[in-house]
Amino acid sequence: MEFKEKLDSYISLAEDSLKVYNAHSDNNKPQSGLIDAMNYSLEAGGKRVRPVLVYSFCEMLGGDLRKAKAPAAAIEMIHTFSLIHDDLPAMDDDDFRRGRPSCHKAYGEAMAILAGDALSVLPFEIIADDNELDAAEKVRIISYLAKAVGRDGMIGGQVIDMENEERTDVDEANLRNMYRCKTGQLIAASCVMGCICAGADADVIRTAEEYAFRLGLAFQIIDDILDVTGTQENLGKPVGSDEEENKTTFVTLYGVARAQEIASAITSEAMTLLEQFDNSGFLKQLTEMLLKRTK
Amino acid sequence: MEFKEKLDSYISLAEDSLKVYNAHSDNNKPQSGLIDAMNYSLEAGGKRVRPVLVYSFCEMLGGDLRKAKAPAAAIEMIHTFSLIHDDLPAMDDDDFRRGRPSCHKAYGEAMAILAGDALSVLPFEIIADDNELDAAEKVRIISYLAKAVGRDGMIGGQVIDMENEERTDVDEANLRNMYRCKTGQLIAASCVMGCICAGADADVIRTAEEYAFRLGLAFQIIDDILDVTGTQENLGKPVGSDEEENKTTFVTLYGVARAQEIASAITSEAMTLLEQFDNSGFLKQLTEMLLKRTK
Repeated sequence: MEFKEKLDSYISLAEDSLKVYNAHSDNNKPQSGLIDAMNYSLEAGGKRVRPVLVYSFCEMLGGDLRKAKAPAAAIEMIHTFSLIHDDLPAMDDDDFRRGRPSCHKAYGEAMAILAGDALSVLPFEIIADDNELDAAEKVRIISYLAKAVGRDGMIGGQVIDMENEERTDVDEANLRNMYRCKTGQLIAASCVMGCICAGADADVIRTAEEYAFRLGLAFQIIDDILDVTGTQENLGKPVGSDEEENKTTFVTLYGVARAQEIASAITSEAMTLLEQFDNSGFLKQLTEMLLKRTK
Repeated sequence: MEFKEKLDSYISLAEDSLKVYNAHSDNNKPQSGLIDAMNYSLEAGGKRVRPVLVYSFCEMLGGDLRKAKAPAAAIEMIHTFSLIHDDLPAMDDDDFRRGRPSCHKAYGEAMAILAGDALSVLPFEIIADDNELDAAEKVRIISYLAKAVGRDGMIGGQVIDMENEERTDVDEANLRNMYRCKTGQLIAASCVMGCICAGADADVIRTAEEYAFRLGLAFQIIDDILDVTGTQENLGKPVGSDEEENKTTFVTLYGVARAQEIASAITSEAMTLLEQFDNSGFLKQLTEMLLKRTK
């Protein structure tokens, strides 16, 4: 199968499962507005990078894609929950997300808080209730995922990001740690969950993590670059927000050209790690695509 | 052991475990402010009703209290997360909680959102990583807990509560459903997790649920009453907020005296359900204490 075809098939698997797991409620339920707000953000599209990583690691390692269904939906829910809360007025105060009004602009702030909250716990429900994974696999997946989200993961990274805005001495080591927490941990969880679904051993999981943290870092540096070089039309969100919020990024530290070189070098390391796997053609093309993206 | 002694021993077990699971971070971590904010709210006290229910159901049914440790801490974290988000300006906008500034007054709104978020996922991490529960028990507990929190549980109930403020036709059936979701589901999760820790069968779990939903409803009706008859000093939070927010409650529907009668009748049903268990002396006294509380 061609790369684009396979990518689309993973994305459509992910989107179908998101619909199933958060079905549109019948309107008799008094809390149907909550489910609408959750679906509004889940269905807003995006690149679905995280579920694609779950599926592609699982398949590359010879696993059954049915096992990856719940973890793939779970990781996209977590990502969506973080976007909803990130956009809130008390956080980044972004009115647009993926070309549409952000959740709190469409549903109000209270509902957006609660929709994010509901999307932070639903992932654990669907993994626990899954029919394909066994109990030991579920527990490993939940443990890894919860850590990737929590104090030393995505949420911890958001706190570092926030506190960095008050500082003028943010250096590369701080930024790398912040991106590792904020973005890297969820990317790592995606790859590792795919490995667990395929019954991979500890060495394979370690290599997948090493790859994932590099992919996540390159991905984030490219976000820094696009915030300067992109357009709102392409990105579906305002550009120039980093400068406006006084954020230190790889671009403010080193300029666009050097940031691009760093992202390329890190991506090369990620590509080299993929050499350790057979059948990594799809993942190599995905990694290159993410580096060359303009949105 | 006397009731008060046993209650205090369960509470102190719960408080010790909350400290262990969310240890004060070393200050070298750049996200230590997050852990401080989480601890600020976790350590604010409160009645610890939910962990006490986990421990007491586990012990009443002959289970090992060490198995109840992670679920007991988990349910209190979920409760604390809900209080932090409930108090936010976009939600109930409460400046005080348990006699102290609410989390967003002490740490700022963004940090309070993130502290609540971190406390919504940490419970799943500590259950998954527990050394006393087996994988099958963990999966059952996580499944039950996540549902109790989510769309048809606590968060769904908060949405119904919020939407009721816009309505003038809220009736008793609506209120009962809202309280069942918002309060009852977490109380039920507490009791059911205690049952699972003790290896209880499906009949026992069903009776525990029936008891829990009655306890939760009585508890909530008493909250309605205390919002009118209590004092800020006793409650540690402002009184009269229901009326201010145009909330329909059992008191606005029926008056204080009739609301008290309804709470007593529901408590009697809960007490009758406890008759089905041997050794339910502690739980009977707890149930009575919760009905007679003035704060």
